[in-house]
Amino acid sequence: MTISMHSASVPLFQRQLSALLGWLDKAEAYATARKFDANNLLQLRLAPDMLPLVSQVRIASDAAKGCVARLAGVEPPKFEDNEATLDDLRERVRKTLAYVASVSAASIDGSEEREIVIPMRTRDAIRLSGLVYLQHWALPNFYFHITTAYALLRQGGVELGKADFLAMA
Amino acid sequence: MTISMHSASVPLFQRQLSALLGWLDKAEAYATARKFDANNLLQLRLAPDMLPLVSQVRIASDAAKGCVARLAGVEPPKFEDNEATLDDLRERVRKTLAYVASVSAASIDGSEEREIVIPMRTRDAIRLSGLVYLQHWALPNFYFHITTAYALLRQGGVELGKADFLAMA
Repeated sequence: MTISMHSASVPLFQRQLSALLGWLDKAEAYATARKFDANNLLQLRLAPDMLPLVSQVRIASDAAKGCVARLAGVEPPKFEDNEATLDDLRERVRKTLAYVASVSAASIDGSEEREIVIPMRTRDAIRLSGLVYLQHWALPNFYFHITTAYALLRQGGVELGKADFLAMA
Repeated sequence: MTISMHSASVPLFQRQLSALLGWLDKAEAYATARKFDANNLLQLRLAPDMLPLVSQVRIASDAAKGCVARLAGVEPPKFEDNEATLDDLRERVRKTLAYVASVSAASIDGSEEREIVIPMRTRDAIRLSGLVYLQHWALPNFYFHITTAYALLRQGGVELGKADFLAMA
């Protein structure tokens, strides 16, 4: 077994997005126990100029599907960004999991030198090799938004610990 | 160029730890401008039962040096965990950077199936292959603590943005 572009990307997204589904389930149970509307959690922010939970989950989803699609040289699927409930968010995560599982390892492996073009809103597109994109863009960006989502749930009172983050058996 | 256990680990740690040094510099400048003791930042927590900034940085350091050492089949260096100031923390990060740069790519490459033993405080040691350890333990754990450090500085008022996190040129 040798590490590959697929084994260095897809299984990481799958593990962490599956863990995120578990955190959202715990968030709902917590809201039910405390008798508040679980959907209130979607608007929590760590700071007034940081994005709320709903956006953190959307961007984590985008980071995962964008990485897998770009490395495979195909267009990532567009999702609507219209999630309004915890159920909608879970559905978004499930659709992301289904997508990343649908892209074959063979189409991702060997993408180390594939040119990846990242469109930017406020500057020219960034062009990176597949390997540099995975190392220094896709993975840090994905974990940034996943960890921020975790921090928001944690700060919102949901009982989560490191074992929930790593989701190791 | 083909992805390898070295290129999937060491450069990621180097990029993110270097970025962290920049955040700590910005934190000091912010404290100076606002006329408070920058070392106060070290005890900030996202929640009363989460670890403070000083521990988040220590564990990010441990995650990086532990990963590099274990994949290379050597003992990671022990640091004292006695940092009390922002300067101490920066020194810890610099020592970590020096260590991860000192381990040869050749000693890390090919470690996909090397047995990694992670000692645990409250249960039996966890045994994983090098690849699974990197995918599902070392990288998520490293980014968890780095992102939490970022969130703490951000919540503490330090002006940081996504560009500081990714540290892309």
